[in-house]
Amino acid sequence: MANNGANELLLSQSLDPAAPKAKRQLNKRRFLRSRSAPRAPELVPPETNDYVSIPRSEPIFGNLHPSFKKVAICLSVYLGVGAVIFYLVGKQIKGQKTNGVLDAVYFTIVTMTTVGYGDLVPNSDLTKLLACAFVFSGMALVGLILSKAADYFVEKQEILLVKAMHLRQKIGPTEILKEVEVNKTRYKFFLVFSLLLVLIIAGTIFLVNVEKLEIIDALYCVCSTITTLGYGDKSFSTQAGRIFAVFWILTGTITLAQVFFYIAELNTENRQKELVEWVLTKKVTILDLEAADLDEDGTVGAAEFIIYKLKEMGKISQEDISLVMREFEQLDVDQSGTLSISDIYLAQPS
Amino acid sequence: MANNGANELLLSQSLDPAAPKAKRQLNKRRFLRSRSAPRAPELVPPETNDYVSIPRSEPIFGNLHPSFKKVAICLSVYLGVGAVIFYLVGKQIKGQKTNGVLDAVYFTIVTMTTVGYGDLVPNSDLTKLLACAFVFSGMALVGLILSKAADYFVEKQEILLVKAMHLRQKIGPTEILKEVEVNKTRYKFFLVFSLLLVLIIAGTIFLVNVEKLEIIDALYCVCSTITTLGYGDKSFSTQAGRIFAVFWILTGTITLAQVFFYIAELNTENRQKELVEWVLTKKVTILDLEAADLDEDGTVGAAEFIIYKLKEMGKISQEDISLVMREFEQLDVDQSGTLSISDIYLAQPS
Repeated sequence: MANNGANELLLSQSLDPAAPKAKRQLNKRRFLRSRSAPRAPELVPPETNDYVSIPRSEPIFGNLHPSFKKVAICLSVYLGVGAVIFYLVGKQIKGQKTNGVLDAVYFTIVTMTTVGYGDLVPNSDLTKLLACAFVFSGMALVGLILSKAADYFVEKQEILLVKAMHLRQKIGPTEILKEVEVNKTRYKFFLVFSLLLVLIIAGTIFLVNVEKLEIIDALYCVCSTITTLGYGDKSFSTQAGRIFAVFWILTGTITLAQVFFYIAELNTENRQKELVEWVLTKKVTILDLEAADLDEDGTVGAAEFIIYKLKEMGKISQEDISLVMREFEQLDVDQSGTLSISDIYLAQPS
Repeated sequence: MANNGANELLLSQSLDPAAPKAKRQLNKRRFLRSRSAPRAPELVPPETNDYVSIPRSEPIFGNLHPSFKKVAICLSVYLGVGAVIFYLVGKQIKGQKTNGVLDAVYFTIVTMTTVGYGDLVPNSDLTKLLACAFVFSGMALVGLILSKAADYFVEKQEILLVKAMHLRQKIGPTEILKEVEVNKTRYKFFLVFSLLLVLIIAGTIFLVNVEKLEIIDALYCVCSTITTLGYGDKSFSTQAGRIFAVFWILTGTITLAQVFFYIAELNTENRQKELVEWVLTKKVTILDLEAADLDEDGTVGAAEFIIYKLKEMGKISQEDISLVMREFEQLDVDQSGTLSISDIYLAQPS
């Protein structure tokens, strides 16, 4: 019903473009419902806003986000193939060995993360070329984890963290979501930084107790590993050490990379905030008004002002505007400068 | 003069908000000049649009972009400090040695890029902790090079490349700039990918001829180096080799990282293009018109349509819009729904 009213309103105005603005003002707010534009469900880049777990019926990766699922499958396949191949060519790999399968997985992890200790090294042309193939694909895979899965994972934990931090204040879920939204990157940074510290401490304790390293050597091995430096003079040589290493190296290297990533993001956000601040506080001049008058009707409406300011902030470009403007002109059949229902019916015959 | 005309026009309309639109339409295009919003000169993030070399009078980094200069200074300081420190503690580093200073620089480069062959390793608590400090700061520095200098460098070469490619067609500088603009990332990718191939071939030839490696071993060492894997079973052991390595490792690792970066960027751009395509070709419905009517006056103007579509494309958010809307409401003193000169004079007394 409200919808029909809107139709009539838009229709009548489109037929009478010279209708006085005062009358239109009176009619305003009559049919308004949703202000938010829907997004294309399958086309939205996963890193922007769709970290919502979609319930599915699949058994293994059931409650996971599609792109996270993709990463998990890629990682499993990569490690599986790596384990089988390097197990089969195990005799062509020289160095400190423990258990055949374990060494193959450990070698795959050390290679894909580019740690490359050198405690196990390829010893034939075949294994050397295999190592080259695995390091390139491993780098791509780590990039995929960093761009898709890591951020998603942190995002999920973030809400739990903020909830836990405000447990005593008894704030509602809406406030928590708002708090998370405003300081998103800051929370994410603290979260991965804390995880990094835990991993560093856990790694050091493990190396001291299981691999029997001195404390400085253990810390040095930890730093050399998570940064993927991997000189290789200190590494995991026992069976227990390598089981630990398989999980610890992958999480450690990715967590450190993520810490660096969030630092860069915080920097960019701060610069962006400064720019927004500058754009919003600087004086609006007559020249600004002239330049902002997009439809060239001699006045600057709210929407025109918003476009002008967002352009100043660098959020949108002239190209973006021109692109949509062309669609607008095609839709505006009666060339009234505004879109009405009759316009869209005439422009898009179904 | 034209400016005064504009003032009068905007003023008269602000005093008479109910002036018929038809009259305003007649006046349109009378005072229009520039459609482009100026940007804050010093606040714009350097990676977005200011790759213009600013002529300065300084002697060394004279014609370079400020952020590039900053990176060059950081790198020089880092390498200088690394060379001095590791030269002084040279006796506490064990492994294959050539020349004191050269080994110190080589060790610094192998550490900062996280290649970490292990052909030279710290042999005391002091050098181990120093290596930890250098690998963390080195990673940050490589990140800085990747985010600021590398792209700037590629951007500069890109124009030369397009010029060279179209040398026979005799196209003007405007066409070259346009061609570069449209396929920016594609050209950048081809450029760094070609550079990577050159570096791989040069490295292999060098290792075969100077370090006397077999061809497969040379290629394996090249791959293991540029990916920062650095098992260390094959590395640069001669004096000539290490001089070459100092330059080659830094360029090689950064070029490969840049190749991965541009691949990711091309992917994002393609997804973004698909989304834009989807938003621009999908049918505009009555619900869209309702939601797009930002000033709630019952009609959808060009600017409102642009905002709605850019929001659908994910380029701007509701938060961005609300932020500017607040400023608009403060400036719109007479609450006419449009900004006029009298509004901005009243809202911003100077």
